[in-house]
Amino acid sequence: MSHMEWDPYVADCPSRRLLDRIGDRWTVLIVVALDPGPQRFGALASRVGGISQKMLTQTLRSLERDGFVTRTAYPEIPPRVEYALTPLGRSLLKPLRALEEWAVANMPAVVQSHDVFAASARQG
Amino acid sequence: MSHMEWDPYVADCPSRRLLDRIGDRWTVLIVVALDPGPQRFGALASRVGGISQKMLTQTLRSLERDGFVTRTAYPEIPPRVEYALTPLGRSLLKPLRALEEWAVANMPAVVQSHDVFAASARQG
Repeated sequence: MSHMEWDPYVADCPSRRLLDRIGDRWTVLIVVALDPGPQRFGALASRVGGISQKMLTQTLRSLERDGFVTRTAYPEIPPRVEYALTPLGRSLLKPLRALEEWAVANMPAVVQSHDVFAASARQG
Repeated sequence: MSHMEWDPYVADCPSRRLLDRIGDRWTVLIVVALDPGPQRFGALASRVGGISQKMLTQTLRSLERDGFVTRTAYPEIPPRVEYALTPLGRSLLKPLRALEEWAVANMPAVVQSHDVFAASARQG
């Protein structure tokens, strides 16, 4: 596969699945939450409001598989497991933070657009 | 709602749904495809490989509702309908293009990580 040119506009290109994963809500929130440093599962679960344990586990495993996050188990009692960004994961911070910041900054414009759209739909 | 502080880390914050929409694969590809200028439905359908008519229609309508895209019907025979970015949609180009470019640039690293992950899983 190393010789092909990746192009998410092509239906079967694997870069499209990668785009899905990095654009995923939970990926954005978890990667940005790991920016300050390694975190335990429970701390991530608290930081990302409303995420289920199952979804957090799945997303972390997917991030690990993609090479964005490491999982380190410390042989202590009680056992301690920490998640941290890899250099590759850290390189994702910039585009993901830009996406998150765009969403927060432009919520008022989007809410206003919804109102206009609903009003024009009522007018037929 | 205008007084609240938007925060996608809060479970019920509407900015989280906006983050879902702008991170969506089809949103990324369609918004970036509209960068050169207004396009007809058929041209977009060709550009974004493998998108179904239904999905393209739904995504365009969602982009219209969010205020990112306009739909203009020209009273011609045969009828012509064009989709174009609004200034708000245009402001999304930068973060979405960054996301897309990151995905394309880092595919080799991600593919390599998948191989390493699979090998370590086989070793137990």
